[in-house]
Amino acid sequence: MVQMAVGMSKPGNIAKAVSFIKEASSAGAQIVTLPECFNAPYGTKYAEPIPGPSTQALSEAAKNNCIYVVGGSIIEKDGTKFYNTCAILGPNGEMIAKYKKIHLFDINMPGKLTFKESDILSPGNEFTMFKTPFCTIGVGICYDMRFAEMAQIYANKGCQLLLYPSEFSMTTGSKHLLLLQRVRALDNQVFVGMASPARDTEDTYVAWGHSCVVNPCLSSLNDFWMDTACFEIFSYPWLEFDGVFTPKVMEAYPLTAVRQNVKKLIKRPASVHTNL
Amino acid sequence: MVQMAVGMSKPGNIAKAVSFIKEASSAGAQIVTLPECFNAPYGTKYAEPIPGPSTQALSEAAKNNCIYVVGGSIIEKDGTKFYNTCAILGPNGEMIAKYKKIHLFDINMPGKLTFKESDILSPGNEFTMFKTPFCTIGVGICYDMRFAEMAQIYANKGCQLLLYPSEFSMTTGSKHLLLLQRVRALDNQVFVGMASPARDTEDTYVAWGHSCVVNPCLSSLNDFWMDTACFEIFSYPWLEFDGVFTPKVMEAYPLTAVRQNVKKLIKRPASVHTNL
Repeated sequence: MVQMAVGMSKPGNIAKAVSFIKEASSAGAQIVTLPECFNAPYGTKYAEPIPGPSTQALSEAAKNNCIYVVGGSIIEKDGTKFYNTCAILGPNGEMIAKYKKIHLFDINMPGKLTFKESDILSPGNEFTMFKTPFCTIGVGICYDMRFAEMAQIYANKGCQLLLYPSEFSMTTGSKHLLLLQRVRALDNQVFVGMASPARDTEDTYVAWGHSCVVNPCLSSLNDFWMDTACFEIFSYPWLEFDGVFTPKVMEAYPLTAVRQNVKKLIKRPASVHTNL
Repeated sequence: MVQMAVGMSKPGNIAKAVSFIKEASSAGAQIVTLPECFNAPYGTKYAEPIPGPSTQALSEAAKNNCIYVVGGSIIEKDGTKFYNTCAILGPNGEMIAKYKKIHLFDINMPGKLTFKESDILSPGNEFTMFKTPFCTIGVGICYDMRFAEMAQIYANKGCQLLLYPSEFSMTTGSKHLLLLQRVRALDNQVFVGMASPARDTEDTYVAWGHSCVVNPCLSSLNDFWMDTACFEIFSYPWLEFDGVFTPKVMEAYPLTAVRQNVKKLIKRPASVHTNL
């Protein structure tokens, strides 16, 4: 997880991301996740196609370091439309997949936070999963995390890890983010990672920070907190995916077995009883 | 919410519940929720049919106090089978509905908590909603709260309040309960109430307590904590259901609108990309 401060200079941001990818790789990481809008401030002004200069730089970084890069997001110009898109680069530098943010962030809290992403961007229409030698990964971006059904679909399809490049605000970050991240992990018995820009209190948009990875029983949570105004990098012990940790959790809490039984059992949709 | 200590005497427990229903009504409550297994220690030894002596007492209490009673749960004997069942009594004393726990609690954490409810009970096969003059209510029991899809179904069907008579343990209560309760409220934009037995550290099974009601933006949470070894009663300002509070939250966070748009958009199920 790379929690980097995003500045006004696009080449500067890209160079910073490339440098952190190298640093993460040197530290032993095999998958690196950048934050939402890692390459530029939010907006269509900095939009570019995919492939384009930003993903080209990520591709080279992935290849040079032989590492998977979940490329945060960039505002993508695709024809006449704009998307909030995450490009995923494999260790040979190839683009394995790209994910266009499905749930666009519309919020209306006058005096606190008002924002309508759907005014300027188009939503994606495809879920994106990819396989690595370590685990299968599902990708969402920020506000997607609010929608439990997305995580459920990914988990049902066999993902062991969900990654959400994000840019939660101080309002929704403090109120809801960690709660959501933890419950997605708990409900679906998957690992959930969230990478945020660093918190920069001088910025017009102040990100919540707190990038972390949560495991399916939440026990490692405290290891991965961070709240600096610069950046931090950490890696997760992959051993825990490969048949050691997750199966133990699933054995302790056999949610899937219960779900399968319930599916067979339920014959009728909910009927409403009333004595009014 | 009635958080009552449940003792070995069934008549004693029932009398206590009846007394609390009266007290709640006197304090202005219009719906009262009892904890899971309010009438007796857990087990088939104390099972009885529904209607039966316990629900008859609740029916009289509901009628005498002109109040809705969400009757926690009792172990129900129905033919040769046993269920964990919640009877819902209306203000005229009539049984509006009964809900048989669908997701039976099986957990396997050797040394911490091992329990297999499905060894002794049968699961229900029907969701249960009922209408009141205040709001529409969906009912689950304890472990049901772990299953996000149940809360989603209730919310989609129009429930504004979900009530979970519960008996969370010290292990799962401390680790997961409040997290689950809060996210069910947040994800589905509903109120979520959980009534537990009081914590009795002398008991063989120590309940977590912490009965509370959470609203859809979690802001009232702290008002409703409790952790006593006896009981507490509180009521919730119903005004917040009737077109004042929930619509405001829904306007601030238009999750339903986003969901509807996404449903229209998504054309393809998740495909797995791989470069392996």
